[in-house]
Amino acid sequence: MEQVDILVSGGTVLTLDEKDTCIGCGAVAVRGDSIAAVGAAEELKARFSVRKTIDAAGCIVMPGLVNGHTHAAMTCFRGMADDLKLEDWLQNYIFPAEARNVRPELVYWGTLLACAEMIRSGTTTFCDMYIFEEETARASKEAGVRCLAGEVLFDFPSPNFKTSDEGLKYTEDLIRRWAGDPLIGIVVEPHACYTCSDNLLARSKELADRYGVPYAVHLLETKAERDGLISKLGKSPVHFLAEKGILGPSVTAFHCVAMDEEDIRLFADHGCRIVHNPESNMKLASGVAPVPEMLAAGIAVGLGTDGCASNNNLDMFQEMDMAAKLHKAWRLDPTVMSADTVLKMATRMGAAALGMADRIGSLEPGKRADIISIDLKKPHLTPLYREYSHLVYAAKGDDVRDVIINGRIVMENKQIRTLDEDKIISKVISIAEEVKASLKQ
Amino acid sequence: MEQVDILVSGGTVLTLDEKDTCIGCGAVAVRGDSIAAVGAAEELKARFSVRKTIDAAGCIVMPGLVNGHTHAAMTCFRGMADDLKLEDWLQNYIFPAEARNVRPELVYWGTLLACAEMIRSGTTTFCDMYIFEEETARASKEAGVRCLAGEVLFDFPSPNFKTSDEGLKYTEDLIRRWAGDPLIGIVVEPHACYTCSDNLLARSKELADRYGVPYAVHLLETKAERDGLISKLGKSPVHFLAEKGILGPSVTAFHCVAMDEEDIRLFADHGCRIVHNPESNMKLASGVAPVPEMLAAGIAVGLGTDGCASNNNLDMFQEMDMAAKLHKAWRLDPTVMSADTVLKMATRMGAAALGMADRIGSLEPGKRADIISIDLKKPHLTPLYREYSHLVYAAKGDDVRDVIINGRIVMENKQIRTLDEDKIISKVISIAEEVKASLKQ
Repeated sequence: MEQVDILVSGGTVLTLDEKDTCIGCGAVAVRGDSIAAVGAAEELKARFSVRKTIDAAGCIVMPGLVNGHTHAAMTCFRGMADDLKLEDWLQNYIFPAEARNVRPELVYWGTLLACAEMIRSGTTTFCDMYIFEEETARASKEAGVRCLAGEVLFDFPSPNFKTSDEGLKYTEDLIRRWAGDPLIGIVVEPHACYTCSDNLLARSKELADRYGVPYAVHLLETKAERDGLISKLGKSPVHFLAEKGILGPSVTAFHCVAMDEEDIRLFADHGCRIVHNPESNMKLASGVAPVPEMLAAGIAVGLGTDGCASNNNLDMFQEMDMAAKLHKAWRLDPTVMSADTVLKMATRMGAAALGMADRIGSLEPGKRADIISIDLKKPHLTPLYREYSHLVYAAKGDDVRDVIINGRIVMENKQIRTLDEDKIISKVISIAEEVKASLKQ
Repeated sequence: MEQVDILVSGGTVLTLDEKDTCIGCGAVAVRGDSIAAVGAAEELKARFSVRKTIDAAGCIVMPGLVNGHTHAAMTCFRGMADDLKLEDWLQNYIFPAEARNVRPELVYWGTLLACAEMIRSGTTTFCDMYIFEEETARASKEAGVRCLAGEVLFDFPSPNFKTSDEGLKYTEDLIRRWAGDPLIGIVVEPHACYTCSDNLLARSKELADRYGVPYAVHLLETKAERDGLISKLGKSPVHFLAEKGILGPSVTAFHCVAMDEEDIRLFADHGCRIVHNPESNMKLASGVAPVPEMLAAGIAVGLGTDGCASNNNLDMFQEMDMAAKLHKAWRLDPTVMSADTVLKMATRMGAAALGMADRIGSLEPGKRADIISIDLKKPHLTPLYREYSHLVYAAKGDDVRDVIINGRIVMENKQIRTLDEDKIISKVISIAEEVKASLKQ
């Protein structure tokens, strides 16, 4: 009899594969870091000798969610400033707080806190951009959460580097140090076209290509950014990036609120990818990205929460709900951004948007075992007509019961096994006290 | 020493009174059905002999949330049909499902389920419109949740009445039967201007005025409704209602998406009230109500979830988050609909929108004791800079720990005391099986 390590058994298994296969009383078998089989519970129980069974009766079992854009350590600034004009928010709150407080310790503990929150709400992979990303990588590894980590690069000094040369060097060191890690990948992340020189944007791409790692950048978050770049460059920044040879299938752009038809076509033609951040775009009043057009053009569009200073949580269930509803309201069309579309953006397509579709995003034999279960026996999840609808429109992060990442049980029956949450919470509270004091200076 | 029944002690007390008084280590003393005192925990502990103490250290203590517009029993249709054009959704799913399935039993169990969900997410009062509202009232009473119940009235037959005369008679019976009840109030609720004759609208108002109960109606949910009514009436339905003498300080209107400046002025002049339902309006693509203008005009605007077929949950925390973000995105202005504004809409102003501001909506001596506590010791609520921000942008219904309604502990440490949730869930699941079968006919 074949042996497997874990059998998640008895739930309704949503594979999120290309056929959207759904198995009524299903099971997922895990061997090592990977999915060994997906099928009917009875069949898999008969086929395998199982070390550890997770009884998922009454649950939905599905791939873990992919949070395509975060600044994880900004949990330390959660709710520090809200309801402000973007410039006021950035210049008078976020930038001063960061300049005075961001150091490796804050990034490490802030990321641990983010990981606890993400595990609890079913996120198994996140793509991060921040400062001192070695700490982000270290914390994610400790938490057991899959992470694509990228040091934010620009042409002015950061708390971590004085020059962009140092920033690139730091990124290259990250790439080398984490090469081959089963959980942590590195992404080269110039901040944006308005904060990076042409030279830095191009050298970043060269670095990413040299090591075969992805490249990601904030792009066209607002119309003001678009207008500014067009007057500076004489063209849309998407054209500019295309001309510079930077666009390509390893490129992911965050936000893309102010993309026009031509930008979308260029992105599609080059196989670029996008991460949509509806809650952050709404809270900062950045605008509404043309996501239905992006999807129609065949672009892989994922979903992200952005940082906790502009959301203010990392709950991908809430993000899905918001993504589905925002576009309906914006276009006065209730048929756009269906539950099915949005759920894919948070799983299979979200993985593709990060270049990870070969490993994660669906429950299929051979893929990494990133699996979550959602407990349905709750008033707000009763009754059940359609699982996809429930997950997008009714469920919340807190409904997640079990989380497996890379074959390891990270949360079981709502108990996180990898982290000491009390200690992390205390530590971040004390960091926040310092942040508060620093803002009074 | 004075005696009180309950002391909720040690949390940060947000009174939501006119001054937005916040007490760091505060307490709320409850005697019978009412709040006896609000103050510093030490002071109240010294002053009162207490029968039952709820230790709220590490919690926010605040007034229970007011859900201004529900169709509670529609929990039975939660997620039955999504992502459809309004007409398709109504004509091919909701109306047939209702015609074939709505009977007293469905309303009773559906409302019990709604009450469980509302208690769990911190709602202590809801204003309901549905069919067989005697069952809604009975279920709410059993659950211990404050309810303003109204039988939906129109000029065509409902599962409960053949003629509008019978509907009015049923409503009058409700008013008489529930008169003086501490938890249940009755509201006269003609469905809308496009489903009710002038005569029914006017007779409903006459009935409400005769008994001194409130009057509530769906109004201008979409631009199509507005256009249709203007071609029928030759004027905005708000003008029409004003001319008919129906507008006045006991009138609450739901949705009001398609109100113009003049409608808003008329509503303000007559002291009418509004309930805003952002999630439902977004999901059905009904449009975005001009809430900032309504507030600027001095209108009491509450928040509501609408029914579970168009939301798909009853979580007022999510509704607050959506209300704050939707208008920012819609107007490209991050300063509108601040956390402070939205939190008031869900509490003090929400109570005013239902004509209940003298009894509920804030923690003040003499008001009914409708109190909730929110447990802050969670990753997604760490750290804490501002309570109002946390409640609107970071918290979720599931963070509610304790619920007191009318002086009775309805949920303690996340255990609902008044309801058998397992039984309710099973019952609604079996009702939903019948609904599914009926739709295949």
